[in-house]
Amino acid sequence: MFPEISCLPAPELPEDLSISSLGPAKIPSNLRCGRFIPDDARIYVHVSPSAIPPNGVNPTIEMAGPRERIYFDPTKTRCAIVTCGGLCPGINDVIRAITLEAHHNYRVSSVLGIRYGLEGFIERHGHTPLDLTPAAVANIHEFGGTILGSSRGPQPVEEIVDFLERRNISCLFVIGGDGTMRAAARIVEEITRRKVKIAVIGVPKTIDNDINFISQTFGFDTAVQEATRAIRCAHAEALGAPNGIGLVKVMGRESGFIAAQSALALRDVDFVLVPEDNFELDGPKGFLAALTRRLRRRGHAVVVLAEGAGQALLRSTGETDASGNIKLGDIASLIIRRVAEHMKAEGIDHTLKYIDPSYMVRSVPANSNDCIYCGFLGQNAVHAAMAGKTGMVVSKWNGYYVHMPLSLVTQGRKKIDVCSNYWRSVLESTGQYVYFNPDGG
Amino acid sequence: MFPEISCLPAPELPEDLSISSLGPAKIPSNLRCGRFIPDDARIYVHVSPSAIPPNGVNPTIEMAGPRERIYFDPTKTRCAIVTCGGLCPGINDVIRAITLEAHHNYRVSSVLGIRYGLEGFIERHGHTPLDLTPAAVANIHEFGGTILGSSRGPQPVEEIVDFLERRNISCLFVIGGDGTMRAAARIVEEITRRKVKIAVIGVPKTIDNDINFISQTFGFDTAVQEATRAIRCAHAEALGAPNGIGLVKVMGRESGFIAAQSALALRDVDFVLVPEDNFELDGPKGFLAALTRRLRRRGHAVVVLAEGAGQALLRSTGETDASGNIKLGDIASLIIRRVAEHMKAEGIDHTLKYIDPSYMVRSVPANSNDCIYCGFLGQNAVHAAMAGKTGMVVSKWNGYYVHMPLSLVTQGRKKIDVCSNYWRSVLESTGQYVYFNPDGG
Amino acid sequence: MFPEISCLPAPELPEDLSISSLGPAKIPSNLRCGRFIPDDARIYVHVSPSAIPPNGVNPTIEMAGPRERIYFDPTKTRCAIVTCGGLCPGINDVIRAITLEAHHNYRVSSVLGIRYGLEGFIERHGHTPLDLTPAAVANIHEFGGTILGSSRGPQPVEEIVDFLERRNISCLFVIGGDGTMRAAARIVEEITRRKVKIAVIGVPKTIDNDINFISQTFGFDTAVQEATRAIRCAHAEALGAPNGIGLVKVMGRESGFIAAQSALALRDVDFVLVPEDNFELDGPKGFLAALTRRLRRRGHAVVVLAEGAGQALLRSTGETDASGNIKLGDIASLIIRRVAEHMKAEGIDHTLKYIDPSYMVRSVPANSNDCIYCGFLGQNAVHAAMAGKTGMVVSKWNGYYVHMPLSLVTQGRKKIDVCSNYWRSVLESTGQYVYFNPDGG
Amino acid sequence: MFPEISCLPAPELPEDLSISSLGPAKIPSNLRCGRFIPDDARIYVHVSPSAIPPNGVNPTIEMAGPRERIYFDPTKTRCAIVTCGGLCPGINDVIRAITLEAHHNYRVSSVLGIRYGLEGFIERHGHTPLDLTPAAVANIHEFGGTILGSSRGPQPVEEIVDFLERRNISCLFVIGGDGTMRAAARIVEEITRRKVKIAVIGVPKTIDNDINFISQTFGFDTAVQEATRAIRCAHAEALGAPNGIGLVKVMGRESGFIAAQSALALRDVDFVLVPEDNFELDGPKGFLAALTRRLRRRGHAVVVLAEGAGQALLRSTGETDASGNIKLGDIASLIIRRVAEHMKAEGIDHTLKYIDPSYMVRSVPANSNDCIYCGFLGQNAVHAAMAGKTGMVVSKWNGYYVHMPLSLVTQGRKKIDVCSNYWRSVLESTGQYVYFNPDGG
Repeated sequence: MFPEISCLPAPELPEDLSISSLGPAKIPSNLRCGRFIPDDARIYVHVSPSAIPPNGVNPTIEMAGPRERIYFDPTKTRCAIVTCGGLCPGINDVIRAITLEAHHNYRVSSVLGIRYGLEGFIERHGHTPLDLTPAAVANIHEFGGTILGSSRGPQPVEEIVDFLERRNISCLFVIGGDGTMRAAARIVEEITRRKVKIAVIGVPKTIDNDINFISQTFGFDTAVQEATRAIRCAHAEALGAPNGIGLVKVMGRESGFIAAQSALALRDVDFVLVPEDNFELDGPKGFLAALTRRLRRRGHAVVVLAEGAGQALLRSTGETDASGNIKLGDIASLIIRRVAEHMKAEGIDHTLKYIDPSYMVRSVPANSNDCIYCGFLGQNAVHAAMAGKTGMVVSKWNGYYVHMPLSLVTQGRKKIDVCSNYWRSVLESTGQYVYFNPDGG
Repeated sequence: MFPEISCLPAPELPEDLSISSLGPAKIPSNLRCGRFIPDDARIYVHVSPSAIPPNGVNPTIEMAGPRERIYFDPTKTRCAIVTCGGLCPGINDVIRAITLEAHHNYRVSSVLGIRYGLEGFIERHGHTPLDLTPAAVANIHEFGGTILGSSRGPQPVEEIVDFLERRNISCLFVIGGDGTMRAAARIVEEITRRKVKIAVIGVPKTIDNDINFISQTFGFDTAVQEATRAIRCAHAEALGAPNGIGLVKVMGRESGFIAAQSALALRDVDFVLVPEDNFELDGPKGFLAALTRRLRRRGHAVVVLAEGAGQALLRSTGETDASGNIKLGDIASLIIRRVAEHMKAEGIDHTLKYIDPSYMVRSVPANSNDCIYCGFLGQNAVHAAMAGKTGMVVSKWNGYYVHMPLSLVTQGRKKIDVCSNYWRSVLESTGQYVYFNPDGG
Repeated sequence: MFPEISCLPAPELPEDLSISSLGPAKIPSNLRCGRFIPDDARIYVHVSPSAIPPNGVNPTIEMAGPRERIYFDPTKTRCAIVTCGGLCPGINDVIRAITLEAHHNYRVSSVLGIRYGLEGFIERHGHTPLDLTPAAVANIHEFGGTILGSSRGPQPVEEIVDFLERRNISCLFVIGGDGTMRAAARIVEEITRRKVKIAVIGVPKTIDNDINFISQTFGFDTAVQEATRAIRCAHAEALGAPNGIGLVKVMGRESGFIAAQSALALRDVDFVLVPEDNFELDGPKGFLAALTRRLRRRGHAVVVLAEGAGQALLRSTGETDASGNIKLGDIASLIIRRVAEHMKAEGIDHTLKYIDPSYMVRSVPANSNDCIYCGFLGQNAVHAAMAGKTGMVVSKWNGYYVHMPLSLVTQGRKKIDVCSNYWRSVLESTGQYVYFNPDGG
Repeated sequence: MFPEISCLPAPELPEDLSISSLGPAKIPSNLRCGRFIPDDARIYVHVSPSAIPPNGVNPTIEMAGPRERIYFDPTKTRCAIVTCGGLCPGINDVIRAITLEAHHNYRVSSVLGIRYGLEGFIERHGHTPLDLTPAAVANIHEFGGTILGSSRGPQPVEEIVDFLERRNISCLFVIGGDGTMRAAARIVEEITRRKVKIAVIGVPKTIDNDINFISQTFGFDTAVQEATRAIRCAHAEALGAPNGIGLVKVMGRESGFIAAQSALALRDVDFVLVPEDNFELDGPKGFLAALTRRLRRRGHAVVVLAEGAGQALLRSTGETDASGNIKLGDIASLIIRRVAEHMKAEGIDHTLKYIDPSYMVRSVPANSNDCIYCGFLGQNAVHAAMAGKTGMVVSKWNGYYVHMPLSLVTQGRKKIDVCSNYWRSVLESTGQYVYFNPDGG
């Protein structure tokens, strides 16, 4: 299976990684705790000499953190938070961190919680915003989901900015996936066109962990932990029957990070199938033959499947969902059906148990690691907005919290590099290359 | 919805609750720890005066526990354990308890683990039994499933008893559901016919908690705990979208105990649909209208569905599975489809998230409560077998471990009594009667 | 160790198990869900024929549940809840269940939450009561502790009843241990003396599970589950060093139920020391010799200690705490010191790790089993109060929720019967009788 | 409190970060899965331009991973693993990963598990090594602790190398803290002196996360997660009594990372006291006054204390433990005593509950994040050893797995930089600077 792999080209960087600003910061800070990040503190993009491009330039990104001088007068500042797209562990933690930082450390006048995603800006939907006080958010991190509610899909940018102006919002925090970040970019354009002073800060959210230039998205660690629960059960089911097969489908439309990472966490998985590594079902090097070899040798098998794996085997309908994502074909059904036919033909009396834990993976509260991460993201988002930054996201890169241009995170997707040491580790831990190889590996 | 309910008749008791025995116990016990249960210690069946039948007789059941005199000579005793049917939390705990009790307390010569259910007795399947030593079972309770594997469906009784005779087994422990208990009864008949001295002790297993005269089956408590994890996520999903609906399907073919109990545990559930309480989809008193009222009033809803609920709404195919159970129609798909149609007609833009946690509920390790319970079941099963009891199950009734005739547990199923205080509590905690009632409850 | 055990006498029942009432119930019920428990429904105390006293009378207890006719007019009824003594998993669940039942099902006019135990009734402490609305209690079951706060010790009964009269309270719910139940009894006396119409209903709470005539107190199941976490760690520590000893002290002042039950749950414990089963430290049959034998044979040992075990080995100071409990001597320190001396003398280089998880055991949220239990206790407490019952507690006996006279639960304590099958199981699962026996068991 | 802080100087790097090797690698690799890391692949030490020293040189470290050419002939290679010092989540995961990688991917002839730390090398202790086969380690990651056992303190280096030679060991993997890493360095010296070909690879372990040049030690993430359980309980206890104080002591002899990180995870903590940030007990800026202000304002307080905090307030005895660490004074006892005196003097009737979860924090199994981390550490340790590297540790730096000279990790300790954005976040999330400031913050 390996020789055929052609590797991912490295993502190309845009020329300019500098962050837009509403204007020079001026108002003396009232930050209570005085360690500031100078505005020119930066982090290298590349940490390995071999990754530096031929021109020898290692680009740098702006470091996040509290600035000594801020742009907005806190006493007159009104903030708004909106959460868009699918659920993900930690959204409530980000909402809480933004709210507490804005109230306790900057003493802003209010924080508004927009209901149900971008719909909440549009009058005719009639969703009244929530007043996010410290008391209102005190315990929300103990619960999964988002207390604001969410929705998918775009809304008219003009009406959104109308809302912001009418409500006198200075800082808008947008928590969402790459579709949402593109919407945020359009909101910034409209704000610029109107020459109003509103900072727009994104907090990228995707349970698939597939956003470019973000080491790991919040909630991913929790998602992996929950996915291992499902895999553990699939293992018990596989061992529980002659020729038992446990099949788990996890999220991962275009990137198989949850599948790969949870396989590494348990090291009880026999096959990991991800969108980045194509496979055939049929033929001596196909999955069905590999699975048969595994069953013949060990009597059971655990298969972890990213939802976007093997899409080449399905006929796409071309349909899209409300967020504009192409509807994926149902690879799990195809595999279940083809395994049944194949095992019947091979005379193997198998038992396949299928687990789809998706909503249980994404709707749990964040674990302590993600809580901490979300706390920093929220705090740094507020620091950035108060300093007058706009059109950017807060993120972590090479271990530092940074400001990234919105444009950087919306171009392309992060994928597993199947030529990497990481993917090799996955293959080693599953041993699947042995079974995919008709000569016995 | 209430007036129409007609209640369950109380299950009728067979005339004889006495336990069969292979013969008088005689060999002096070598039990290390000397508190014995006299053979005539018994427990009342009915604990409420009003449940005693008109004849005034409150039947009694034999108490379980170590006997001062035992039937088998431990040094010559070989035991076997077989696990059948679907997985359930705690099976490994029962296997471990039987093995440790037999080895440590009675010092039997060996305990054999039969692989893959009744198949393991049948030569042509080629499943070699495991030697269950204390070391081999030391940590198995930390894992879900069954280390022996399981299978469904009957096998020829003659071949099973041939196996037992050939392997010189004195005590057979059968862990399984009611189909398995019927198989155990047939094994006892064949043993009796052959006049061999083999004790057969059942440990009833069903995650549905639907076995007659067993207060609660092992694993049920764990299953409820796990089901609440799914419901918690469904709640987060329902709150996360305008008109969000979280739909969870849990196990419960003919009895809705998991659905009802997990709704009581969380008290965040809005509708519990179980096989015992029929409902319509259509009409002003139907589920679709009730759900619509709920959404209109509160904006979201959590629905917990037992897999066997609403079967009257589906056309049965009459097919059966390997265990002989009638294949249920897929009520979840029907509800999802009909809700979509109905909400479209009502002009309600809803989001339904469906979670089926079944294999995650049944394949986890037992929680501490079930661990303790399984430990006692296993120990008492060994005590019963060594005392020469046969054709019985160990169980808990009115807080005591007891010996019950196999015939008692295989007649009929335990169901939720919809006229009970218990079901009323479920309805109160969901408030569903309010929404099912077109006049506002 | 066994022959010397003298067993507990069975607790004697008071002559009268009937429940006091404020007067005949009369106001037609507005219960929304109509299955009522007739006032004469009763449950037998004894379930085993051999437990029935020589006079042949099996006493009965009143069954709990909603009554068709109630005493108080809900629209004019004000309730109050107070929580006293140490924390225990599930207190918030009981508060929540009482509040939701009173509001949703009876539509009472208000529920008052008294702050910090009996202190909250006394003006000079200045603790303002909380208004317990359904929204205020919606999520409190997700948190350990008590949202009302607690305190220890008595307060003047006159001032308490003054408070109830002044605030126009009709139903008082008292959640607490046996000291609190005695205080509740004195409150009832004062109410009776004043001839006012106030129902006082107790919900017995003790993490030690040592209240007479209550099968299991709420929170105990959760406490056992948490205690097993500590024992699991003690096991890892014991295995992690040559002659490693893991020592865990759990709650249990006069009764060792948590110690015994958590040992049964894990079956990895080597010694369980409880107040009911005396032991010596020195001598060939003493604990130090037993521990030495165990280390010599297996190289490690796990010891679980109830805090009240071995008090005969300590000189009592005679001091009492605010609740009037005698201050226990510190058995853990004594054992750690004596083990160190003994092992030094024996030339055994040991490592002892001591874990006291007490506050982590009692301050966690209730698990699903306890949630359900607390839900029923709270609902039935409201049913009892609304029906005009008073001077009683709600409890579970032989599987049914019942009304018990306050006097019954305050007389004596429930202890482990060291002659029982239960304790024998503990000894079998630890194997400690082998090591306590100098002849090798 | 802030102005007085003087910051940590940045740790100075040794001049040479290159890795020793036993000789050129030559034998063609039999790695099954062919993506190799070239031997000259390196990672920058500094990722922020401002951290680069005045000479403008950003040092680089060798990247870990499988090499195309290896030094040892796998068929003749015998490995050994030893675990030293205190327990830490994930040790079994590292043992398992080394064993599986060595057996499955390199097909080495055997892996030996040395019992009880360095003691296991010394004949007179009589600890027989374990044969670590893939089957033997299959499930060990589900358990805390170390299956090999551990011990503290040094052993004669000559005897250790005698053992390695006698047993024909080629690769020794040493899992332990900085004392152990110094022992490993001495073993390397002796091996070099004898001119034998034995690779020694360290895997640094410390639950305090205080090893220089290691972003995060394995087990730390799990430890934080477990510590938050204790803090959650302390919070429930603090809320449960008038003027309730919950005091939690966590590990952290010289570095307060667990305390700080778990405070960030929960954001319910009011005071974090760590060794890096000195504090006084008395005076208007002392802890007792700060705690009093907090109680007066909010009625409760949660305090998290690293074991090494406030040592200046205690008289050191100068004693050391078996590992050579100075015995810390008991700061918790001092604080409990002084709080009691102070509150009495202030007329505040307080309740303090003290939780020491140390052994429960360090003895649990690794969470999924640490499982993955330990898996990579173990795999890369084997890759390094097989390539003939020696005198180094595997570690993660700037997101990459790297080879670090042993000397680098044993010089000094990593501490919280109290001038950093990180510590500011801790102070913001606790708000403690407000209470430490007599003017109200």
